Amino acid sequence: MTYYQRAVIVGTGLLGGSIGLALRRLKLAAHVVGVGSRQSTLQAALDRGAVDSIELDYLRACQAADLVVICTPVQLVVGYIRQALAAGLTGEALITDVGSTKASICSSVPPECHSRFCGSHPMAGSDKSGVGHATAHLFVDRKAIITPVAQTSTQCTLRCEQFWQRLGCNTIRMSPQDHDQAVARISHLPHLIASALAAGTQSSLLPLASTGWSDTTRVAAGDVELWRQIVAENRIAILAALQDFSSSLQQWVQAIDGNDQERLVQLLALGRQQRLAVETPEAGRKANSG
Amino acid sequence: MTYYQRAVIVGTGLLGGSIGLALRRLKLAAHVVGVGSRQSTLQAALDRGAVDSIELDYLRACQAADLVVICTPVQLVVGYIRQALAAGLTGEALITDVGSTKASICSSVPPECHSRFCGSHPMAGSDKSGVGHATAHLFVDRKAIITPVAQTSTQCTLRCEQFWQRLGCNTIRMSPQDHDQAVARISHLPHLIASALAAGTQSSLLPLASTGWSDTTRVAAGDVELWRQIVAENRIAILAALQDFSSSLQQWVQAIDGNDQERLVQLLALGRQQRLAVETPEAGRKANSG
Repeated sequence: MTYYQRAVIVGTGLLGGSIGLALRRLKLAAHVVGVGSRQSTLQAALDRGAVDSIELDYLRACQAADLVVICTPVQLVVGYIRQALAAGLTGEALITDVGSTKASICSSVPPECHSRFCGSHPMAGSDKSGVGHATAHLFVDRKAIITPVAQTSTQCTLRCEQFWQRLGCNTIRMSPQDHDQAVARISHLPHLIASALAAGTQSSLLPLASTGWSDTTRVAAGDVELWRQIVAENRIAILAALQDFSSSLQQWVQAIDGNDQERLVQLLALGRQQRLAVETPEAGRKANSG
Repeated sequence: MTYYQRAVIVGTGLLGGSIGLALRRLKLAAHVVGVGSRQSTLQAALDRGAVDSIELDYLRACQAADLVVICTPVQLVVGYIRQALAAGLTGEALITDVGSTKASICSSVPPECHSRFCGSHPMAGSDKSGVGHATAHLFVDRKAIITPVAQTSTQCTLRCEQFWQRLGCNTIRMSPQDHDQAVARISHLPHLIASALAAGTQSSLLPLASTGWSDTTRVAAGDVELWRQIVAENRIAILAALQDFSSSLQQWVQAIDGNDQERLVQLLALGRQQRLAVETPEAGRKANSG
C-alpha cells in the first residue's frame, strides 16, 4: 500500500539506501528521491534501484514531500531538519532521522518542528557501508527506537512509529536521554572495544588472525568520522560504559591471575549465555542479496 | 592423491570433522576413522560424511594407522599421544594435534615420540561448533602453525607441514613458546574480550543488540570447558595480553574524557586500518556449504 507520495532520503549509504529499497520494493512510496552532496554516491543509489530520482538541491527535493528521512552523520541532522521546515513539505509530512545519538539532536530542533519531527534509531546495520550493501530487508524484525520529546505531537510520534513498522521494525519508545544511555552500552561500547582491540594488535601478528580476532574486531572497519561524531555527541554515557567495562575486565584478570578456575568458568558461562540469548542479525551478512 | 592409508581423527567436532571432510573429498586418505567417547557425536560425523568409519576403541582405531590427528580439548592431547605410541602405528606415521596452546603439550610428550609427534595449530575455526558446521574448505588459505621442539625429527616436522599444506594451509614454524605468546594476543585475548563484553552487558539491553554487539561478542558463544582449559594452559601469556589491552583501553578513555578528538580520530583510524588489513575468513560463515 502506498503511504507516501514523495519520500526524500538524505544520505544514500547503507541505511538510506536500504530504506529506499524497502520503500520501493514494498511500494510504500510513489516516488523516492535521494539527496546528497556527491553526485557519484547518488548515482550509485539510482543504479542500485534504491531511489527513483536523485537531487543535489535539498530544498527542491523537499517540495511537496510527505516523508523526509535524514541518514547523515549525526552532527548534520539538525541543519537538515531546519531546512526541511522551510522547503514546503505537505501538511502531514513526517521528518525523522536514523542517528545513533538522540539527546543532542532532539533538544536542538526548533519549536515549530514538534508536529513534524520525531527522532528515531533503527537497531540495524552492517560492518559494511555504502549503498552496494543496502538491502530491502535490513530492518525486518529489528528494533527501531522512537524518541519523542514532551513537545512532540502525538500524531507525529505515531507517524514515526508507523514508518518503521512499515519497513518491518518493532518499535520501542524511549526518551532521547534513555536512548543515549542504552546505546552507549549496547552499540557504542562494542564499537570502541572492537576498535581498541584492532588498534592494539601488533601488526606482525595480523597474518595469524582467525575467526576470533576477525569477528571481535569486525565493526572497527566502520567510518572514522561517523564514529568521531557519535563519540562527541554521547561522550559522557560512552565514558561511563567504557569505565564500567574496564572494571568488569578486572574481574577476569583477577580470576585468571589467581588461577580461580571456578570463577573463570562462571564468567565464561555468563558470557556464553548472554551471547546465545541474542538472535544474530543476519541482515548484514546477506546484504548483497537484497 | 592418496597419501594416507588409514587416518585416525580423535574428536569429530568442527575441526576434526572438517579435517575428515577434506581428507575424504580430496581423496588424501584411503580410509578415515573417527574416534571419540560419545557414540552420538561419532554417528553425526559418519552421517555428515566426515569419516568412513567410527570407533569407540582408540587403540584399535590406531592399529596400522599412518596419520593420527588429535582434535580434543588441550588437556587431553598428551594422553592420546602416549596411547597412540603403544597402539601399533605404521613406521612412518604422523601424530599431530590442533590444540590452541602448544608449550604445555609439546614439553610433555614422551621422548620416544619425537619421530612421530609434531604439534600444530591451524588458525581456522568458527563461532559455531560441531560436525554440522564442518566444511572441507575450512583450512584453505589459512595459516597453520607448526611447533616442533629441538628433539622433533626433521622428517616428522616435514610430514606435519605437508599434512596441513595438503588441506590447503600455509604453514609457519614457531617454537611452542612463541606460538603461545602470539595466540594469547591474536586469539585468546579476542575471545576473552568478547566474553567479557557479553557477560558485562545488562540483560535488559540485550533486545536492543544489533550488528555491533553481535559481531563483537560472537565468539563468546564458544564452549566453556574448552576455553577454561586454554586459559589454564596459557595463563601467563593471556594475563599479559589482558593487562596490555587494559592499558591501551585507558588511552581511549583519556582521549574521550579529555575530548581530544584528534587523538580519538587517530585511534579509530588505526583500528580501522588494522581491521581492513586482515582478510575476513569467511569459512565459518559458509560452514554449511562444505
